Amino acid sequence: MQIVKIDKNSDISNLVDTLLQRTPNYYDDYIKQVQNIINDVKERKDEALIDFTQRFDQVKLSKNEIKVTEEEIKEAYDKVDSDLLDIVRKAKVKIETYHMKQKQYSWFDSEEKGILLGQKISAVSWAGVYVPGGKAVYPSSVLMNVIPAVVAGVENIVMTTPPGKDGKVNPLTLVVANECGLKDIYKVGGAQAIAALAYGTETIPKVDKIVGPGNIYVALAKKAVYGHVNIDSIAGPSEILILADETANPRYIAADLLSQAEHDELASSILVTDSEEVANKVVEEINALKNELSRKEILEKSLANYGYILLVDSIDEGVKVSNEIAPEHLEIITKEPFMVMTKIKNAGAIFLGEYSPEPLGDYMAGPNHVLPTNGTAKFFSPLGVDDFIKKSSIISYSREALYELHEDIIKFADSEQLTAHAKSIKVRFEDDK
Amino acid sequence: MQIVKIDKNSDISNLVDTLLQRTPNYYDDYIKQVQNIINDVKERKDEALIDFTQRFDQVKLSKNEIKVTEEEIKEAYDKVDSDLLDIVRKAKVKIETYHMKQKQYSWFDSEEKGILLGQKISAVSWAGVYVPGGKAVYPSSVLMNVIPAVVAGVENIVMTTPPGKDGKVNPLTLVVANECGLKDIYKVGGAQAIAALAYGTETIPKVDKIVGPGNIYVALAKKAVYGHVNIDSIAGPSEILILADETANPRYIAADLLSQAEHDELASSILVTDSEEVANKVVEEINALKNELSRKEILEKSLANYGYILLVDSIDEGVKVSNEIAPEHLEIITKEPFMVMTKIKNAGAIFLGEYSPEPLGDYMAGPNHVLPTNGTAKFFSPLGVDDFIKKSSIISYSREALYELHEDIIKFADSEQLTAHAKSIKVRFEDDK
Repeated sequence: MQIVKIDKNSDISNLVDTLLQRTPNYYDDYIKQVQNIINDVKERKDEALIDFTQRFDQVKLSKNEIKVTEEEIKEAYDKVDSDLLDIVRKAKVKIETYHMKQKQYSWFDSEEKGILLGQKISAVSWAGVYVPGGKAVYPSSVLMNVIPAVVAGVENIVMTTPPGKDGKVNPLTLVVANECGLKDIYKVGGAQAIAALAYGTETIPKVDKIVGPGNIYVALAKKAVYGHVNIDSIAGPSEILILADETANPRYIAADLLSQAEHDELASSILVTDSEEVANKVVEEINALKNELSRKEILEKSLANYGYILLVDSIDEGVKVSNEIAPEHLEIITKEPFMVMTKIKNAGAIFLGEYSPEPLGDYMAGPNHVLPTNGTAKFFSPLGVDDFIKKSSIISYSREALYELHEDIIKFADSEQLTAHAKSIKVRFEDDK
Repeated sequence: MQIVKIDKNSDISNLVDTLLQRTPNYYDDYIKQVQNIINDVKERKDEALIDFTQRFDQVKLSKNEIKVTEEEIKEAYDKVDSDLLDIVRKAKVKIETYHMKQKQYSWFDSEEKGILLGQKISAVSWAGVYVPGGKAVYPSSVLMNVIPAVVAGVENIVMTTPPGKDGKVNPLTLVVANECGLKDIYKVGGAQAIAALAYGTETIPKVDKIVGPGNIYVALAKKAVYGHVNIDSIAGPSEILILADETANPRYIAADLLSQAEHDELASSILVTDSEEVANKVVEEINALKNELSRKEILEKSLANYGYILLVDSIDEGVKVSNEIAPEHLEIITKEPFMVMTKIKNAGAIFLGEYSPEPLGDYMAGPNHVLPTNGTAKFFSPLGVDDFIKKSSIISYSREALYELHEDIIKFADSEQLTAHAKSIKVRFEDDK
């Protein structure tokens, strides 16, 4: 963890570039392989899924084993800690409550001469949630990806996840999915799962929107099918930026930086402060705390590569740095955090005050933990109900209202050399003359 | 124009597939070329832009000619029909008025024990609008792409468009851009323009969001840079579907179908009706009207390839067909169009009643004419203010409120083997014990 002084004239673009390079924007070697998998699934459907699952997951499924059975879901409940299940249910309620507030409503506006304009909101009909396999299971991630779709009113939500070597899906994943009301869960992972969701197979239905995190194959497959279906954003490595003044508790800051760093070696933890004392104490606290934690090797690597303490002249300068980095998670631990927040332009989630640590948001607070990473908070938003709806414009004009505009539209269309467009207006008033 | 009978048991998936095939989802031959252009612009910046503009547009620009000058904008006003300019200004007001109603607002909700959750809305800082060159100039397209960004509050909006052979930008494009308040317009087109907007050059700034239509190079370049910046949806060939019963005027329907067909040979015009009489009369009217129009060859090709009259048993059956096709433009010309509209799930824009022809929406009504094409209305929305904003979650907890959840969060984090996440909560209450 290095302390770097930043002043008004410092160019932080090198730092920003270093962070951005954690996600190369494309990977030539993988793209071809991913495209081949997609093409094969498009063509051979379930047969291709069976072959890829054998090759990549070392599990030989028959056609009727692709879908998880009701029996398997029931069995999964026996394997899950009931205290944890209670907490999952509590979290579910909090996440639902927050997402209900994100709902948008259809609207219209009208004018007396007979003009009605508006916007109709409707949910997508089909959503597919991808859940990664591997050793780590993240029940919180299942909740965060499924609940916004449920709240949006998506009629059909399906899930795909790679099976373990025993041919089973992790029981906790099944239980959490079932708690959210999902019945259609498929034992397929990787690019082949994304292809199946995008194009459909005999067993897996084609969906309109695919969400969920995954490895590089999954990310590239999502990008490849984007446009044919919709996807959430493409997830990159995670980061936290903590903006702190001299009132902040260095031990809390240290713990929060470490909580980000434990995710993986590409995770980035950044403290931006105007207090040299806080900066120095945070370094001490990190050294003390990290010995008490289990993922020491990952912690040390990510802090060494992408951990920074930036010493700025003022919190206002710190805000500028933060807006430039556009962190996924931003903690503001200062005297007046809400006043600082007014100046924040780019951040996935903003945690205010010393009792709002980032892990609160990961699990229980309610807002989504699927957030724009690696600078994409400049243009992407947290996953939410918006991701599962789409809008239709509504236009209704009376004869009188159209008449008032008809000459303008005809002239406009003629200027674009679209005479049939002009004609569509003319025929409606040709009997007038 | 063929009349096809459809009943409850008909499978329209062949028709849907035919329409979808108008846009192959990827084009192997072009992708490499586009990626090479992007890489070259990333590396050589303005120099690469100058080379590509010479190669593709046959115009040799010097570095300081890439940006359109104030002088050129002034001169453009002399070349534009002042009546047309008045209409453009009228359209601009109507488009602004509609888009103002799309604005979303930041919100929060709070609980007395010290919990504040919310969502902060902010505009992207930089937007780039691409305007195609070529013979046809579409001032309406400039309005529709720029105004939502202006209404969203985007601080910096820039435009790129290829120069004509004389090295100038079309005067109407310049005038309309200037009317919208744009000052930074660059004479660059194609994939190189998209690369410049995505990565920045000495002259063209890097933006957060790129919008605007373009040819296959532009579309593939937008897809390639997606994730590094945000883009609008990827535009495909245009279509209209008209849902009409026996009350509809066949001449109006014919004119509206033709107005869609004149766009290009890939455009699709579809009538869905439960009235055989209307179906037959529409065929007659099309034959009569098309001789009065200028783009006869395009009209005939697009009607022959992608024009359909589908005869259904009832309007309800017609709604099902329409939802499956998910048309860009949907006209409902029936007895009770608003009641039919309640059943529509997928459509870019819905035009109700016989005095709401599609060209009204193209120019003057107010809603955006950049709409999801070719079935993507199942998951994409019209271009709008939403495209230029992003959201940040807001989370603030008091000590008391966090205390209430702290044991749950610790257990949840431990279940995911994230001990540093648990520690971040523990350190805040370690003095209690």
